[in-house]
Amino acid sequence: MARFTLGRVVAGAAAVAVAAAVVGVAAGATTSHDDNTGDARRAIVGGRARHVIMFLGDGMGDSEITIARNYAVGAAGRLTMDKLPLTGEYTTYAVQQSNPSLPEYVPDSAATGTAWSTGQKTYNNAISVTPGDVDLPTILEKAKAAGFATGDITTAELTDATPAVLASHVNLRGCQGPADMATCPDDKKSAGGPGSIAEQMVDHDVDVLMGGGKARFDQVSDGGPAAGTSVTAQAAARGYDVVTDAAGMQAAQPGTKVLGLFSSGNMPTEWTGPAATPYTTDTAPNTVPVRCTESNPDRPATNPHLSDMTARAIDLLEAQERHGSGKGAKGRKGFFLQVEGASIDKQDHAANPCAQIGETVEFDKAIGVAVEWARSHPDTLIVVTADHGHTSQIISPPQVAAHHTPGGFQTLLTKDGAPMVVNYATVSPVPAASQDHTGTEVRIAAQGPQAANVLGITDQTELFHTMSRALGLE
Amino acid sequence: MARFTLGRVVAGAAAVAVAAAVVGVAAGATTSHDDNTGDARRAIVGGRARHVIMFLGDGMGDSEITIARNYAVGAAGRLTMDKLPLTGEYTTYAVQQSNPSLPEYVPDSAATGTAWSTGQKTYNNAISVTPGDVDLPTILEKAKAAGFATGDITTAELTDATPAVLASHVNLRGCQGPADMATCPDDKKSAGGPGSIAEQMVDHDVDVLMGGGKARFDQVSDGGPAAGTSVTAQAAARGYDVVTDAAGMQAAQPGTKVLGLFSSGNMPTEWTGPAATPYTTDTAPNTVPVRCTESNPDRPATNPHLSDMTARAIDLLEAQERHGSGKGAKGRKGFFLQVEGASIDKQDHAANPCAQIGETVEFDKAIGVAVEWARSHPDTLIVVTADHGHTSQIISPPQVAAHHTPGGFQTLLTKDGAPMVVNYATVSPVPAASQDHTGTEVRIAAQGPQAANVLGITDQTELFHTMSRALGLE
Repeated sequence: MARFTLGRVVAGAAAVAVAAAVVGVAAGATTSHDDNTGDARRAIVGGRARHVIMFLGDGMGDSEITIARNYAVGAAGRLTMDKLPLTGEYTTYAVQQSNPSLPEYVPDSAATGTAWSTGQKTYNNAISVTPGDVDLPTILEKAKAAGFATGDITTAELTDATPAVLASHVNLRGCQGPADMATCPDDKKSAGGPGSIAEQMVDHDVDVLMGGGKARFDQVSDGGPAAGTSVTAQAAARGYDVVTDAAGMQAAQPGTKVLGLFSSGNMPTEWTGPAATPYTTDTAPNTVPVRCTESNPDRPATNPHLSDMTARAIDLLEAQERHGSGKGAKGRKGFFLQVEGASIDKQDHAANPCAQIGETVEFDKAIGVAVEWARSHPDTLIVVTADHGHTSQIISPPQVAAHHTPGGFQTLLTKDGAPMVVNYATVSPVPAASQDHTGTEVRIAAQGPQAANVLGITDQTELFHTMSRALGLE
Repeated sequence: MARFTLGRVVAGAAAVAVAAAVVGVAAGATTSHDDNTGDARRAIVGGRARHVIMFLGDGMGDSEITIARNYAVGAAGRLTMDKLPLTGEYTTYAVQQSNPSLPEYVPDSAATGTAWSTGQKTYNNAISVTPGDVDLPTILEKAKAAGFATGDITTAELTDATPAVLASHVNLRGCQGPADMATCPDDKKSAGGPGSIAEQMVDHDVDVLMGGGKARFDQVSDGGPAAGTSVTAQAAARGYDVVTDAAGMQAAQPGTKVLGLFSSGNMPTEWTGPAATPYTTDTAPNTVPVRCTESNPDRPATNPHLSDMTARAIDLLEAQERHGSGKGAKGRKGFFLQVEGASIDKQDHAANPCAQIGETVEFDKAIGVAVEWARSHPDTLIVVTADHGHTSQIISPPQVAAHHTPGGFQTLLTKDGAPMVVNYATVSPVPAASQDHTGTEVRIAAQGPQAANVLGITDQTELFHTMSRALGLE
């Protein structure tokens, strides 16, 4: 069996061969001893895309991917993201705010988000501004200006760094809502600034915004024409259909802008399980392999899953592409959509392997939705990557008391029926302290027009150019 | 500037375009905003290779590569290995000896070596035998039988797992010399077995064997026709030129088999520097950025470097290819060469970032030798990969005493002039206890015929098939 399941060849001015990976989580081995040279050659497609769908697994380094694969489909199984045909690794370093000629080897999601969304390196905490705090045009802004519909969805607060970098500019990522502006006084609307991240995102008229963070949007603007009203109310006044649950999301009118705020803060995780803990004895609970709980009592049943949000975002953007929105609307040239699996990172920080894996599995399911859609839309560039590496490592069982693991760990029973020990040890104590990002290069995988530009070792900033070229923006 | 510096197109029955990466360590950024689609397409070459040169960075996960890059050429710089055009990641898990249907998620170099050299998964410690201890034919054995010259070189003992898997079969990797057979009594020559790893390697008549481990070869066989003589003496009797230093290596007669034993045990590291230590205070020595010492007082000046060994091995194998060896010799069909950078792993075990980086840099220099040679030999498949991931991570400076790193770390001053903190925390205490391998997928990069088969997510066993196909062995 060929490793890449290739879709039909689309005839046309440029014959376009699209590698359409099989959707869903595959069970069992998919390895092949066949020569994939021809498939690889056919997967390389130049030219333009009408659609760019970018998947950002926050903190999803190669170690995090392997952990999720081993647990969910077994070591010889393949996730959907594993089936994208063209792959590379990219560097993720930030630069120092005080001296931007020097790298900061361990980046955050703000600096890395600025890198992929604007093509420019900046310092940790910066949201699409230069080290000198000059606004940088983003891929979403450029796509919108060129006539594309735009979408930006996440499992975090919508005002969190990754979604924020596409549609706001502020020098500190913490300035999320109008009441969070103590550290960004010049940006306040009352000071004549562009306002908080929430205010800016709504003012950007992004067609589809979905995630958590309702509490940020419910804060009240302190200046500008809408002073005294909440950002949520402002969104409604601008024509947004503001929805707060899965039913509302499904009921939203195609052709209307949609603001989905499904949770007060970050959306609750899909799965739960024990956090990593330090070594105590060879028979302690963290040495006994456990299965994760594939649900979360704190997650309301009305919360949509990221895969549902992705499917609905594609529907809504496709409607915008066909018909535009509002009176006398024209169709759009296509769309740009960013989908973030945010809590892979957040649960790596929390040293919770089950919650981390559950988020990775749901993120992978969301990728499957886009890959399936792209089967009938071969003019689509799909990119799957991470912003930075993280803590978790697969280690051997720490059976010898004198030489145990120095951080914390938890043993899981995988799909294979074998024990897998996941170690967290960048910050002490585990799990009380938040674990740290790492500076490793991370995977980038792609299919569709321009996808070959992810091959080899690239820098995160090049992704901005790859996506821009695909949309004909440069 | 195109990311891949492509060599000339070779006209012929099949036009062959070879991506010849620039040799040597590049300074400064090599990123590009150009569309590399055409270069990528030209880098995909099917068909056969006359030469396969495989580089195995032991324990060289993506984190280890990033650490070496940041230190040696800067975050925006590129190592030679970074310039190979076709890239993927592969899975490295072993299987459990007691139940081979279950994976062992953290593998060793023996199981992983068996995987890439034979195409079969086995248990940790096994040298090219099945979980049932049946010998598995190796890529080197098959290449030799098909008329190719063969080489196997390392910075470790030649009897260490990675070089061993190509030319010996034994159920425990510790059975390195005739005096090390207590755990492998049935394999002893006196028991009618094939003997230790050292004995088997010489009996295999591999054309070029170079590395450390002279003490193993100086042990005396206990049975067989050569009972009572050392393996070194047996090699000489079989026609090997046995050399023990760089001068001897250079003086070896082309057309003669060469056994280079440059060190009693593992070859000493290229660089030295402080090992990682636990957090004590925010001003402790491990928090102060240091440069590595790019030399080692314990390394004899007569020791060849891995890049010199690689250049000489290629010379000698090319001579074998042209003329063969011995009376009435015929030329060979080409050659297979394995080059191991062994002490990347060994210094990761030792939590010594400088020594680890120095080994990675020298390994990269060796890759440069092959890439340069391949410019004029486009019928060459070059593969660069690792056998498994390892411990080291790039983390933020652990400045807050209450939330310090739980393992050990050392801060280095990189080529960029910026501090990089390298963390070791899979096993405690650091650095006294040996750090642990990890189970992460690792990078595989390639150029030349069949190189496109490394794209995507593959398994380590597929590399055996890729190399076999390149040599026309399957």
